[in-house]
Amino acid sequence: MRILILGGDGYLGWPTAMWFSQRGHDVHVVDNYLRRRAHAEAGTDSLTPILPDLRARVAAWSDVTGRTMGVTEGDLTDPAVAEDVIGGFSPDAIVHYGEMPSAPYSMKDRDHAVFTQTNNVVGTLNVLWAMRDLAPECHLVKLGTMGEYGTPDIDIEEGFLEIVHNGRSDYLPFPKVPGSMYHLSKVHDSHNIHFACRVWGLRATDLNQGVVYGIQTDETRLDDRLATRFDYDDVFGTALNRFCVQAIIGHPLTVYGKGGQTRGYLNIVDTLQCVELAVLNPADPGEFRVFNQFTEQFSVTELAELVRRAGAEHGLEVSIESIDNPRIELEEHYYNAKHTKLLDLGLQPHLLSETLVESMFGVIERFKDRVIADAILPRDRWRPVAQAPAG
Amino acid sequence: MRILILGGDGYLGWPTAMWFSQRGHDVHVVDNYLRRRAHAEAGTDSLTPILPDLRARVAAWSDVTGRTMGVTEGDLTDPAVAEDVIGGFSPDAIVHYGEMPSAPYSMKDRDHAVFTQTNNVVGTLNVLWAMRDLAPECHLVKLGTMGEYGTPDIDIEEGFLEIVHNGRSDYLPFPKVPGSMYHLSKVHDSHNIHFACRVWGLRATDLNQGVVYGIQTDETRLDDRLATRFDYDDVFGTALNRFCVQAIIGHPLTVYGKGGQTRGYLNIVDTLQCVELAVLNPADPGEFRVFNQFTEQFSVTELAELVRRAGAEHGLEVSIESIDNPRIELEEHYYNAKHTKLLDLGLQPHLLSETLVESMFGVIERFKDRVIADAILPRDRWRPVAQAPAG
Repeated sequence: MRILILGGDGYLGWPTAMWFSQRGHDVHVVDNYLRRRAHAEAGTDSLTPILPDLRARVAAWSDVTGRTMGVTEGDLTDPAVAEDVIGGFSPDAIVHYGEMPSAPYSMKDRDHAVFTQTNNVVGTLNVLWAMRDLAPECHLVKLGTMGEYGTPDIDIEEGFLEIVHNGRSDYLPFPKVPGSMYHLSKVHDSHNIHFACRVWGLRATDLNQGVVYGIQTDETRLDDRLATRFDYDDVFGTALNRFCVQAIIGHPLTVYGKGGQTRGYLNIVDTLQCVELAVLNPADPGEFRVFNQFTEQFSVTELAELVRRAGAEHGLEVSIESIDNPRIELEEHYYNAKHTKLLDLGLQPHLLSETLVESMFGVIERFKDRVIADAILPRDRWRPVAQAPAG
Repeated sequence: MRILILGGDGYLGWPTAMWFSQRGHDVHVVDNYLRRRAHAEAGTDSLTPILPDLRARVAAWSDVTGRTMGVTEGDLTDPAVAEDVIGGFSPDAIVHYGEMPSAPYSMKDRDHAVFTQTNNVVGTLNVLWAMRDLAPECHLVKLGTMGEYGTPDIDIEEGFLEIVHNGRSDYLPFPKVPGSMYHLSKVHDSHNIHFACRVWGLRATDLNQGVVYGIQTDETRLDDRLATRFDYDDVFGTALNRFCVQAIIGHPLTVYGKGGQTRGYLNIVDTLQCVELAVLNPADPGEFRVFNQFTEQFSVTELAELVRRAGAEHGLEVSIESIDNPRIELEEHYYNAKHTKLLDLGLQPHLLSETLVESMFGVIERFKDRVIADAILPRDRWRPVAQAPAG
């Protein structure tokens, strides 16, 4: 298949591109290096050293595997970029990771909030209009987030639910109560994509992904030059990856508030499997399909305890420390999110284990000297400090 | 009270400004004349002649009533404008009409879609951040639209509903299935405002308004120079207002498709009442309150028949013609939308009658020579003509 990867330079985008290329698909990657620039501005960086740009990465990929990929360095908020890659490459599927992915980034201040929403919404609108006009049969596989749902007091279904009300019923989009300006941008995307499917007959799968952990995939292991980025800082790092880095550098694992925040998690290799399952089993024309993409639920405290146990096995003394929560979120809540649709398509989950965490420790130890320790603690707060704390 | 009217030059904004000013409130109006420019570009215009800008309108208002208002000519997508008016005027309430209001405009092409969403979402984000930092006690009264809900097969509640699911229940936002890029922008706004209330403790009322009809208010009647704009063209005109113009110029009333599309409607004088009720009974800090703002439901065919009957009373021979629907929407559907919250606050509805329609005929007849007849039929289609028609 002809597969276009938007955001192909990212933590997941680059491994996804290699995965499809390795399996014989024709892959074209697009990125504007937004994340690299944001790191440069913040004085942070990937733990793993990565090649300087997509051209260098693709050259290394060709060198190692004999396979190649097309590259476009461009910004999807420029409609000409979206039209050029979609019209020029004529993809069968578009895997769309090409957005600003950070909640803390989006909450820094007004300009970051406006940038995050504009960047994500306009980029995706440009993709939808280009599909409508240039590739109406193409299947959009869009990365959403489980954070779109928030933490409702009922079971979370996959995108839609049957609502029975006053003796009538309808199958409607699951209500969204997202927790940051970034998560809101993904909710806006979901509504826009749903509309494009209903009105223009486009086909799309929205992958509401949980928190991804892990460093290595079959392809990154082939050669150091094929490594994917690994973020552990306060802006782009996520809970488990950050805890593993803290464990290795002897820093307490920093749990925000009570640590009862429960979310869905998955291994990076399962992200690749899920995206492949979505691509190989496309939505029907006019269908807007939503999959909840994660394999297990954990509370933040459960994750921290698991990392502490794995650390002990590994000879590390790991402590856990609760810090003032920079976010406004429930720290104790009901959480039961359905995630059967990808299992039904054949997903074989790689569940989290102390062994997996120990293997992550191994990689992190190799690059331990690159850790910028003062970039780990949160610097951006959801509510101005002058205001009263959350009730 | 100190009341800031965003979009104060518009069909509803200007009458709202005069309404509050006449009742002794301190009013400041903001507009960037977006609608006037869009009309100039399209070669269309208001049926009623209106003064050239807000300064002239406020001067006429002072001349007639001895009252005055502050004026800012500026664009809310410029954060400095939002900060200047909110920080400088320190409003008790912000009535926010300041958005691109047209579904057909938003569906013209990609650029109009992107502009509509960016303009509306960014302007409102700038207002929210300015409120957070400069006026956290201020009450935002935001104009949304009943079109955010679409036409679900269950009763439409006011913004939220109790969902019972798998033996648990939660009170969650009502699912949204909007019908255009414009309606989507209002859904995005609603999610952003809800977040600002939850996380920053702002207070907001989202008025999900139905289709407004009518030309005159107590204030516009005081002097011809105080007239509000009246749009009947394919981009900014709405069903009943357009039918009245068609009746007067001897044009068939153009019903899109089967005409079973049912929506909520209200008289312009009830818009003023509703907005006043919301302003005088503010939401609590942290509360995001949604009112469905309309007084009666009608199908398009029912409206056309009413205008035909009123025309007969008025000595006009009015015919009704079904034309190919430019929109993608259900033409026959269940529709039962709740609208009790504003009644509970004291709304006294002015229901639609043939007498009201005849009084609109009178005003339209006065300006009959200004009608641009070839701007009435729809020119923008929701789906490219090359595509198959809606199933």
